[in-house]
Amino acid sequence: MKIAIFPGDGIGPEVTREAVRVLQAFDLPGMVLFEGDVGGAAYHRHGHPLPAETLEMARAADAVLFGAVGDPACDGLERHLRPEQAILGLRAELGLFANLRPATTFPGLEAMSALRPEIARAIDLLIVRELNGDVYFGDKGTRTLDDGRRQGWDMMAYAEDEVRRITHVAFRAARGRDRRLVSVDKANVLETSQLWRDVVNEVAADYPEVALEHMYVDNAAMQLVRDPGRFDVVVTGNLFGDILSDQASMCVGSIGLLASASLGERRTAHGTFGLYEPIHGSAPDIAGKGRANPMATILSAAMMLRHSFGREAEAVRIEAAVAKALAEGVRGADLGGDAGTEAVGDAVLERL
Amino acid sequence: MKIAIFPGDGIGPEVTREAVRVLQAFDLPGMVLFEGDVGGAAYHRHGHPLPAETLEMARAADAVLFGAVGDPACDGLERHLRPEQAILGLRAELGLFANLRPATTFPGLEAMSALRPEIARAIDLLIVRELNGDVYFGDKGTRTLDDGRRQGWDMMAYAEDEVRRITHVAFRAARGRDRRLVSVDKANVLETSQLWRDVVNEVAADYPEVALEHMYVDNAAMQLVRDPGRFDVVVTGNLFGDILSDQASMCVGSIGLLASASLGERRTAHGTFGLYEPIHGSAPDIAGKGRANPMATILSAAMMLRHSFGREAEAVRIEAAVAKALAEGVRGADLGGDAGTEAVGDAVLERL
Ligand SMILES: CC(C)[C@H](C(=O)O)[C@@H](O)C(=O)O
Ligand SMILES: CC(C)[C@H](C(=O)O)[C@@H](O)C(=O)O
Repeated sequence: MKIAIFPGDGIGPEVTREAVRVLQAFDLPGMVLFEGDVGGAAYHRHGHPLPAETLEMARAADAVLFGAVGDPACDGLERHLRPEQAILGLRAELGLFANLRPATTFPGLEAMSALRPEIARAIDLLIVRELNGDVYFGDKGTRTLDDGRRQGWDMMAYAEDEVRRITHVAFRAARGRDRRLVSVDKANVLETSQLWRDVVNEVAADYPEVALEHMYVDNAAMQLVRDPGRFDVVVTGNLFGDILSDQASMCVGSIGLLASASLGERRTAHGTFGLYEPIHGSAPDIAGKGRANPMATILSAAMMLRHSFGREAEAVRIEAAVAKALAEGVRGADLGGDAGTEAVGDAVLERL
Repeated sequence: MKIAIFPGDGIGPEVTREAVRVLQAFDLPGMVLFEGDVGGAAYHRHGHPLPAETLEMARAADAVLFGAVGDPACDGLERHLRPEQAILGLRAELGLFANLRPATTFPGLEAMSALRPEIARAIDLLIVRELNGDVYFGDKGTRTLDDGRRQGWDMMAYAEDEVRRITHVAFRAARGRDRRLVSVDKANVLETSQLWRDVVNEVAADYPEVALEHMYVDNAAMQLVRDPGRFDVVVTGNLFGDILSDQASMCVGSIGLLASASLGERRTAHGTFGLYEPIHGSAPDIAGKGRANPMATILSAAMMLRHSFGREAEAVRIEAAVAKALAEGVRGADLGGDAGTEAVGDAVLERL
């Protein structure tokens, strides 16, 4: 059980510290933790947001626990040196193609959502976002056209195997949930989406027990506001997934509670190599004040135990402890309460 | 005042009929109306969703009033023959590069929104979407890679002049409203967006009275749920605009009341050539039943009088009549009421 801890910027170090305490509480055999630099923190120390040492550390591990990256002090830097590039680099270099983002409204927290409580309460969905392809990783550049005009361009593309593997992840997830899958594309306009849709239909033949629906991305953005409770699992490409998963997180209202997993193809002894991180950002405004809510990072550690180490029992215990703490009124500042970072960590530990 | 009326499919003919009655009520000098086929209706009659005659008619007009396209009977057709291609074709052929979509919560209709009433009530924004470029109109195709895999691809691109002209439209709109403009892109990943951002910053120098903010599209999708009242004017590219404008419409709750304008560069005697259409679709399930709410189409006709004919006074009278009818309890089926299409038309006419 080799776990690389990449705390990153802002509140990253504070929230990962609490998640590490929770992991250590289980006394798991052979658990080894090592820490690496990413993001602005790495840039300041090594001149690059994703130093070679960090990448090596990730490769040597079975899983990565990631805090957050984003540092206003890096705003003026060229794009490839900015903190966010660390996460794009890790996804690409480690082949983390499957991003799982569950969004659920925690009981009693409906009032945190901008949606009406009865609509927010019904949200229990999982977004499966492809992370290694699409317009993110295609060729791109700025050129001067024959007539002298500057043009910015980015190639959007998906090959069939890239679509196939993420679609399998999504169907398998749906099989373990409510057996409904919505695939989101823009097939009325994009060839990339038409291929996406064809491959999803092919793969669907392997999962007759799952109900498949195709939806255009503009309609999906509408339905996620109107009736998010209608969704079980959603699968989509990198760009649409970026937009829709953030939209869905916000519908829940308590983004400080949402975890994520980014899985690769490499198998570990009892699962799949993956990177785990909270959905929230580095929140530089409250960094170092001990006020950040570590629950999303703690829940990310639970996802790690489940997906990378086959430790379902421990994952469930963490999730139950967080739910219990919330039910008993433990509230970080993001939820209008006054429990600090360490106090929330303590509250979860006590209820494990 | 030459106006081409393209009723299209589903409820299109019913709702445009009411908007035409409203236009005719003004007895405007020299107003000439002619009707053309688009969408599924055109496909069934001429074998193409956008026949050459229709396009000619649009070119000969000063403005187009468009109903809706979308016909389940066309579902099996190849993409280029499907009804939606009519609207893409009109945008491209007529150079309709600027899509204006106002989204406002009508007083008393907050409860229609999925958002909490106090959040919904604050929505009063205008989305300015570029319509002639981006990944919509770049080269695209499906190819077989060297290793035999099929790949779908679409080129995303913007040239500086394309960004410049839509940015001017947005800044001018902001100047006439609350003087706040948010430009949405994904400049942390896309070169197209980096060029977009650079050009928006250049143009901003001409509008010192407008406050400009840049926002990533994933964040914009979150803010549109969390606090849509913070937006005044939003400018963005074709693809992000497709997603965000539909999301914003849904936040308002009463999509049956939302109008839109798509403007080109061609000047008319008193304004700009444009196409005007309701945001809602062809709603095949209620087509022909006299139940569709024509208010969005009537409000689109008001936008036409304003933008293509310089008839601000008449535009305001239509908008006031619709607001009055709503305030006095006139409600179409989409708003939980029982006023039919013609009855809503009558109600607006009586209050002009
Ligand atoms: C930081 C950025 C490049 C990244 C993305 O767009 O993927 C982020 O928004 C995310 O969703 O993890
Ligand atoms: C029908 C479709 C091609 C179109 C688009 O994507 O532009 C529609 O969604 C719209 O927004 O007008």
